[in-house]
Amino acid sequence: MSQSPSPSMGSRLAAEFLGTFVLVFGGCGSAIFAAQVLDGDTVNMGIGFLGVALAFGLTVLVMVYTVGHISGGHFNPAVTFGAALAKRVEWKAVPAYMITQVVAASVAGLVLFAIASGKSGFNAVESGFASNGYGGRSPDGYSLLSALIVEVVLTAIFLFVILGSTDERAPIGFAGLSIGLSLTLIHLVAIPVTNTSVNPARSLGVAWFAGPEALGQVWLFILAPLLGAAIAGLSYSKLFAKPMSAPLV
Amino acid sequence: MSQSPSPSMGSRLAAEFLGTFVLVFGGCGSAIFAAQVLDGDTVNMGIGFLGVALAFGLTVLVMVYTVGHISGGHFNPAVTFGAALAKRVEWKAVPAYMITQVVAASVAGLVLFAIASGKSGFNAVESGFASNGYGGRSPDGYSLLSALIVEVVLTAIFLFVILGSTDERAPIGFAGLSIGLSLTLIHLVAIPVTNTSVNPARSLGVAWFAGPEALGQVWLFILAPLLGAAIAGLSYSKLFAKPMSAPLV
Amino acid sequence: MSQSPSPSMGSRLAAEFLGTFVLVFGGCGSAIFAAQVLDGDTVNMGIGFLGVALAFGLTVLVMVYTVGHISGGHFNPAVTFGAALAKRVEWKAVPAYMITQVVAASVAGLVLFAIASGKSGFNAVESGFASNGYGGRSPDGYSLLSALIVEVVLTAIFLFVILGSTDERAPIGFAGLSIGLSLTLIHLVAIPVTNTSVNPARSLGVAWFAGPEALGQVWLFILAPLLGAAIAGLSYSKLFAKPMSAPLV
Amino acid sequence: MSQSPSPSMGSRLAAEFLGTFVLVFGGCGSAIFAAQVLDGDTVNMGIGFLGVALAFGLTVLVMVYTVGHISGGHFNPAVTFGAALAKRVEWKAVPAYMITQVVAASVAGLVLFAIASGKSGFNAVESGFASNGYGGRSPDGYSLLSALIVEVVLTAIFLFVILGSTDERAPIGFAGLSIGLSLTLIHLVAIPVTNTSVNPARSLGVAWFAGPEALGQVWLFILAPLLGAAIAGLSYSKLFAKPMSAPLV
Repeated sequence: MSQSPSPSMGSRLAAEFLGTFVLVFGGCGSAIFAAQVLDGDTVNMGIGFLGVALAFGLTVLVMVYTVGHISGGHFNPAVTFGAALAKRVEWKAVPAYMITQVVAASVAGLVLFAIASGKSGFNAVESGFASNGYGGRSPDGYSLLSALIVEVVLTAIFLFVILGSTDERAPIGFAGLSIGLSLTLIHLVAIPVTNTSVNPARSLGVAWFAGPEALGQVWLFILAPLLGAAIAGLSYSKLFAKPMSAPLV
Repeated sequence: MSQSPSPSMGSRLAAEFLGTFVLVFGGCGSAIFAAQVLDGDTVNMGIGFLGVALAFGLTVLVMVYTVGHISGGHFNPAVTFGAALAKRVEWKAVPAYMITQVVAASVAGLVLFAIASGKSGFNAVESGFASNGYGGRSPDGYSLLSALIVEVVLTAIFLFVILGSTDERAPIGFAGLSIGLSLTLIHLVAIPVTNTSVNPARSLGVAWFAGPEALGQVWLFILAPLLGAAIAGLSYSKLFAKPMSAPLV
Repeated sequence: MSQSPSPSMGSRLAAEFLGTFVLVFGGCGSAIFAAQVLDGDTVNMGIGFLGVALAFGLTVLVMVYTVGHISGGHFNPAVTFGAALAKRVEWKAVPAYMITQVVAASVAGLVLFAIASGKSGFNAVESGFASNGYGGRSPDGYSLLSALIVEVVLTAIFLFVILGSTDERAPIGFAGLSIGLSLTLIHLVAIPVTNTSVNPARSLGVAWFAGPEALGQVWLFILAPLLGAAIAGLSYSKLFAKPMSAPLV
Repeated sequence: MSQSPSPSMGSRLAAEFLGTFVLVFGGCGSAIFAAQVLDGDTVNMGIGFLGVALAFGLTVLVMVYTVGHISGGHFNPAVTFGAALAKRVEWKAVPAYMITQVVAASVAGLVLFAIASGKSGFNAVESGFASNGYGGRSPDGYSLLSALIVEVVLTAIFLFVILGSTDERAPIGFAGLSIGLSLTLIHLVAIPVTNTSVNPARSLGVAWFAGPEALGQVWLFILAPLLGAAIAGLSYSKLFAKPMSAPLV
């Protein structure tokens, strides 16, 4: 998008910090504060799973347009991993990106915890604190295997969308829209199954506050997204290779 | 959008497979897992018909930006048929496109079935498994004739939107937005009537798992979309012919 | 958007017919079929006022990208009137545009009536059939004066958005998004007050089927939108006049 | 976006007036009229917090495309303050912008009051009239400290989105989308906490009508947004400085 020199690594990590902070603060925050706000016993004025799905997608949509031109707009270790496998980001940037993402997600979790604590009766462990889970901790009672499949498949889809929408053959400027709204789609499918991760940083950022059972299941939400990202990252160029635009000789 | 050589047929079919898989996995998946998730007897935390309508639209919006530049982004035999009638895709590609779409939709149905089976008490036939229907199988009790009219009219609208939004006179890049959101609109109208098809692949992909009654009604959701698509495909250029931009001699 | 010759009047009227048909079929259809679909006594799986608001906005968003480059994408006599006052459409096209819009809206109302009649127990008059109203026919009991104010103010806003978003100083291509989503916004505010018109064709198209009381109130939903449109159409260029880009001599 | 001369200050203030009027009329209006419309005791046909969040975001999205090219599209004293600190607007325009915004918001509040008064039994103080609050006036019972944190953090995010999306390195034309939808995101998180301000004009515009308790808390919704805006306005260029595009000598 720009012919000017690449942003410095400091700016790139600041962009990843800000974007991942917004992803967790906005996505998990909407779930913690706003998903269910009952008026009487039967009317939910809150935003439900639909509103939470929209919030997660908008965090990414908005932050891609805000800092995507600085850092690439990953905000997710699985995205960084898949992008590196697809040769869209240099491997030497990967550890700093991932660490920054996990730190930012955890800071966002801490700020959410501080705000939530200002409501009397709040209990992070009992509320679940927007953590991911399977089996007894799945919002609607899905097994570990179901959780594994849905997270692998949806993260693979997420990476295909990212790699395809930023392909130089795709329309210019629309990638933020496409990528962000794909995360809304992903949440529309999977909140009842796992509360939707597809992002190890998002899972870790709130798991610290959600009790030992949540932390004990977080491994799945690190492994499955990385596996899904690898599937897409390794196969994208094989499936959709750009044909040569000119003869080689 | 690109002056480079056309993608290979292999890439085009891979794109159609991926897009149709996402359409059924995301759209039908949201309906199966997330439409209704009761908290107590009276509060639905789930996404309702509104969320399902959004999910279906987003599958197409997102996949048009992801692989539309590879295959044209049909993901639907009725779209392929209407586009061929409107001379936007070569007839010889039509059979391979359609077969790929139906196979991808069915694979998506299978993966959804596997995930859903990880919830105790799941029964695909009783739940409906996001299948389309009329009469006793219409979500809100509409007749076969109502179902026929709504599917024909809405598929015709869908094809008009596709052909118009990709007309070279339309603004560049916005077709994915327009086409995807038109599918949301279509679902906002027709879920109570037929559970909304406008796509024979989507209907077949889940009907295999929804029992003999669902399969026995699937013919309508093959014929009506093809008929609607034909109306638009045959009339578009007559209604909105591009005027000559230069004298003929 | 195009340097090619202007579309013929036949194409322009076909575009207005198609767009207005979709506006009423999609917007009013979502209200009639999908706003309320109860599961038991207390859970509404339907799309509510929020879904109807989204549907109305998407009809315009989608049809502006589909045929806006043909006809300007009015789909509404008040828009045509305001655009003529603002010198954005030639006065001699106004009568044909308006007649086409009202006919298309009425045809859409008729098709909706046919579909709705395929559900046992359907009664257009009792259901309201998505008609507009005030006083005893206001969805939430607002007076004639409240109805008048809200329709005038919101139609004026609608026309300001249309004129501003298509101003040559605005970003290219985004007008359909802005105009369509402004209609969603308008419905988010006014459905409880009047069921939201801002469009005499939309009001007339369904009033034929909604009984004499609905028809007896339709005058307000012709006059108020035209008045609101006039306010914006006459003031836009005075408020936001483009400064001279070059000295006159 | 334009090489033509800058709009006059009169046009700029008219644009800020119109945009801020729409923000309060549309956002607060949706909350007052449409958030809760019960059908019986248990079914809410209204738009809930999700619909209100969408409405607020759409007001800004739509008005940025309508008049953003005239005034910059602030519609919010905190945005004007943050933009001035970031050197995106000249300081001498700030007082006129802010006064115009507060006046427009108050006029919108007055028109909303007139419309609402046309429903029997309406009482602005009892209903809250879409005012912001903390403690006993927080929609879901959050403390002053929680309110302060959430308003500061979310306004800072809002300004980062505005400054980043309008950075010359960001894709052209998408800023209205990104900025508007970030306001939807912000409301998805914070309506239960404070009813969401991030905008002193929006808070003042309705507080006049909501009784002495609402007015007594409005100071927080002036201070916190200004503080959040300052954090982003002062740090943006330090974090994301554009590197030199050419050697200095």
